[in-house]
Amino acid sequence: MYTLYHHSFCPHSRFIRLVLGEYGLDLTLVDERPWDRREAFLALNPAGTTPVLLTDGFPPIPGAGIIAEYIDETHGPEMGDRRLLPVAMAERIEVRRLMAWFNEKFFEEASGPLVTERIYKRFMSEEVGGGAPAMDVIRAATANVRYHLAYIGWLARTRNFLAGDRLTYADLVAAAHLSAIDYLGDVPWSEDDAAKAWYARVKSRPSFRPLLSEWLAGVPASRTYVDLDF
Amino acid sequence: MYTLYHHSFCPHSRFIRLVLGEYGLDLTLVDERPWDRREAFLALNPAGTTPVLLTDGFPPIPGAGIIAEYIDETHGPEMGDRRLLPVAMAERIEVRRLMAWFNEKFFEEASGPLVTERIYKRFMSEEVGGGAPAMDVIRAATANVRYHLAYIGWLARTRNFLAGDRLTYADLVAAAHLSAIDYLGDVPWSEDDAAKAWYARVKSRPSFRPLLSEWLAGVPASRTYVDLDF
Repeated sequence: MYTLYHHSFCPHSRFIRLVLGEYGLDLTLVDERPWDRREAFLALNPAGTTPVLLTDGFPPIPGAGIIAEYIDETHGPEMGDRRLLPVAMAERIEVRRLMAWFNEKFFEEASGPLVTERIYKRFMSEEVGGGAPAMDVIRAATANVRYHLAYIGWLARTRNFLAGDRLTYADLVAAAHLSAIDYLGDVPWSEDDAAKAWYARVKSRPSFRPLLSEWLAGVPASRTYVDLDF
Repeated sequence: MYTLYHHSFCPHSRFIRLVLGEYGLDLTLVDERPWDRREAFLALNPAGTTPVLLTDGFPPIPGAGIIAEYIDETHGPEMGDRRLLPVAMAERIEVRRLMAWFNEKFFEEASGPLVTERIYKRFMSEEVGGGAPAMDVIRAATANVRYHLAYIGWLARTRNFLAGDRLTYADLVAAAHLSAIDYLGDVPWSEDDAAKAWYARVKSRPSFRPLLSEWLAGVPASRTYVDLDF
């Protein structure tokens, strides 16, 4: 039994929800607003970031990358062909490379600033940086989405899934980050058919459904957010 | 046989050199200046960052965290008690938490800006951001070092090594990041005796010697950089 401290539009949290969904693991969600810096939350994760996974008998597990390694080590072996971090070393390297690409690079350049400016800042008080979105930050991040989308399209044209023949962490992490900003209408899908077709496949998986049912009061979802045939 | 594309003051590269040194693995170093964005280097790692580890039969392994996982999976088991990512799950979680703490948080808040402003910018052309260091960035990063040093001191007072009883990746990653900025004199050791005593122990390991022999023309090392009894 797992408990996940998350924010519904935190891309890293969305990735972990997809992973647990794919493995059929039960999950209780606890809504956390990391910018509140609650003392009890900082005790779970001194870095103050979501997600944090709790499970009996272990210390709190902080951060998408560390949770993904934990889930692989505890549940991966029993999953056989459905293991999301493949056993072969060359594939592990490529899947981990793409995990870092999205959790670090895409987050820093695109999903992080877009979610912060357009969602988090609505709920933050002025003292912790809330207020109107910075349009220059949004413009820069939106431009970055385009080159990342082209990279995803290149991978999707070269391979069946992003890291190779099968669904892996790489697909889930990319789709998680994209889904958070797709809600905002910030993914120019028409620019890359291969990327769009790949995302449509991942988005139609049952593990994705809970994410698509997350709506934010006062922030309408984009036209394509829920549509599986966008 | 391993080849590491690195920069001598890249904190992430230093961490990997310490790891390979502790395990007694042979290493050829290739100096890379990531800001040059050499095409051949981008082919090894599209993210364009150091370090990248090359070894026969596998794709290039990019990034300190991914290299550390690779080394653990290929060499860890034969190391027994000297394994730097311990086998027990609770310890793996804590070691990985501290790896992320230093490779991501400490790097973003302290070692990254300090090394960039005070070292890399000397060698970068103006078009890619070279020039005089931004003093406000240096001031903010220097202030951040102090709270990180207090956290290291708290860990060192609570435990024998940063993540527990034995030397792990956590000690090597923390010491690697600190060593890069200690060269610049940016670590106020006198503020925390426990942190200083822990660093003196890690610094005196044979794996550390190659780092301490790295000198930079035109940038003198701080008084305490090489001194094992600083």
